[in-house]
Amino acid sequence: MKCDCDYILSNEDWDPHYQNCSTIWNKNYGTPSPKNADGTFNLTNKHLEQLDVDILYHLGLDNKNYDLPKMFGDVKFVCMGGTKYRMKEFASYVAKALNIECKDPVNLTKHSHRYAMYKVGPIISVNHGIGIPSMSVLLQEVIKLLSYAKAKDPIIFRIGTCGGLDIPPGSVVISSYALNGTLEKTYDVPVLGEMRKIPSFFDNRLNQEILHVASEVKGFTTFIGGTMAADDFYRGQGRLDGPFCDYTEEDKLSFINKLVKMGVKNIEMEATAFAAMTREAGLRSADICVTFVNRLKGDQVTPTKAQLLEWQERPMLVVTKYISKYYERLSK
Amino acid sequence: MKCDCDYILSNEDWDPHYQNCSTIWNKNYGTPSPKNADGTFNLTNKHLEQLDVDILYHLGLDNKNYDLPKMFGDVKFVCMGGTKYRMKEFASYVAKALNIECKDPVNLTKHSHRYAMYKVGPIISVNHGIGIPSMSVLLQEVIKLLSYAKAKDPIIFRIGTCGGLDIPPGSVVISSYALNGTLEKTYDVPVLGEMRKIPSFFDNRLNQEILHVASEVKGFTTFIGGTMAADDFYRGQGRLDGPFCDYTEEDKLSFINKLVKMGVKNIEMEATAFAAMTREAGLRSADICVTFVNRLKGDQVTPTKAQLLEWQERPMLVVTKYISKYYERLSK
Repeated sequence: MKCDCDYILSNEDWDPHYQNCSTIWNKNYGTPSPKNADGTFNLTNKHLEQLDVDILYHLGLDNKNYDLPKMFGDVKFVCMGGTKYRMKEFASYVAKALNIECKDPVNLTKHSHRYAMYKVGPIISVNHGIGIPSMSVLLQEVIKLLSYAKAKDPIIFRIGTCGGLDIPPGSVVISSYALNGTLEKTYDVPVLGEMRKIPSFFDNRLNQEILHVASEVKGFTTFIGGTMAADDFYRGQGRLDGPFCDYTEEDKLSFINKLVKMGVKNIEMEATAFAAMTREAGLRSADICVTFVNRLKGDQVTPTKAQLLEWQERPMLVVTKYISKYYERLSK
Repeated sequence: MKCDCDYILSNEDWDPHYQNCSTIWNKNYGTPSPKNADGTFNLTNKHLEQLDVDILYHLGLDNKNYDLPKMFGDVKFVCMGGTKYRMKEFASYVAKALNIECKDPVNLTKHSHRYAMYKVGPIISVNHGIGIPSMSVLLQEVIKLLSYAKAKDPIIFRIGTCGGLDIPPGSVVISSYALNGTLEKTYDVPVLGEMRKIPSFFDNRLNQEILHVASEVKGFTTFIGGTMAADDFYRGQGRLDGPFCDYTEEDKLSFINKLVKMGVKNIEMEATAFAAMTREAGLRSADICVTFVNRLKGDQVTPTKAQLLEWQERPMLVVTKYISKYYERLSK
């Protein structure tokens, strides 16, 4: 297993309760929202307390007409990904692996027509569409949902597909940090007309644990590295095959090589906001993507549909193994 | 009918072939990509000519294994909107209005699992998800599709839902220009690490024609005005009900009032990129949204599902009337 990091946690270091990781977290990334002693967490927005009912509009749920603690209080893991289809597949996949009965996962947000959310035991599987705005709408409502439901120490995974940089297609990348399109480690969001820049780092401890689990899976290589989150699939990622392109192949390669030198392993479209918002909420998260193309060699996604489907299962496999191991160790 | 504009085109000014609007277009918005004499258009990206096959990955189509001119050469209108459900509904709706046989619209991009695209006679109805990155992936592949298919003078509509500013919920807004989150009239996209700012104005002539058509519909008011395109649904739109909010209600209202004074009528999440990219391709386009809330009075979407569904049909109704009138006048 090839990896960019200095160490891989030994089994002995592995702590499924994560009580001892707050020091690393705080030292590296500032202070997240405080958690309660039982692992539940409060939202810092005090305006919410004045609402008679909080409508989670895009989920088609609210905290008055639905008993959210009863429905979601047991949630320990949330797994997010692009398409409804893939996240339904993940729900079935993880159910089978954990031996949870689930014949046909039910979309809990069906009537909102925006996203699809499934629940299998203590795991939510939900799709977020393409790009930061789509993902952030969903993520913010999921964060509110988890807080209202009094879920304890939930961990949020994002699984996805991406373009790889100087690594073979089919590789898996765990993001250590996320870069915006101008190569800063921040999620940039204008608030009341002024640009805010929110740090976009992932939890190193969680990443090491995932890498440790991924190393046991044969057939592909898993890397930890930087991730660029682009707001566009074509020129925003230096592709030459969009409708608009006024730069040369040399310009593109010089840009991609610059990223490679910075330690960036892949380009996707969500990592900055995903890292920033989960951190703001005080929740641990990890972004795990499979590469569909080596951008140093081309732009187009040319493998066969069957090949892509097989590769697409790799992040699912890694996350499922992590969750399985989590419960295995808890029961010891 | 209340409107912000100086004039409404009389029937006599109405030219379905739009040959005479290039002067207005060029004067206001710079020179778009040149069209061919027959109305077809070429893509300016010369790299595309070197591709043996161009895979429109998110549409699940390509220009080698599919006869795109045969499949889409007759397309005159593209109508885009957020959800798959709504755009399937639009396909049926417009088919009925134009008397085109279409029992159950077929999703032409089904196996890509990303978007859903329907075709009814010369009209494409396609969903784009939420936010600029999701919309721009789809729009760029649709632009390539239309060019490869040799569609003639296609017009692209976006229909959507939005938050209204100082106008009653249920109103329809036609966007005259789009503002980014820092209140500039540009679509900002980083290209090779550098921020580009692309003008985001809509076609005034087309907007006037749509307003003229909308004025014939009773039951709601249609406005032409500025549109803010936010990259976030919560703090990116000055909402008080997201998980993260560190500003006061006064700060929010002061921001919304600033937008109102600038002539901004609504906030949605796609307009800047939609205006900029259609203009870059030399295609006319219009963004027509119904408001679900008056943001001066609140943030949450509280009307009943039935009420929202009724309102949601209004942009569909306006676009369908426009298309019907287009064919009515052509046949005269």
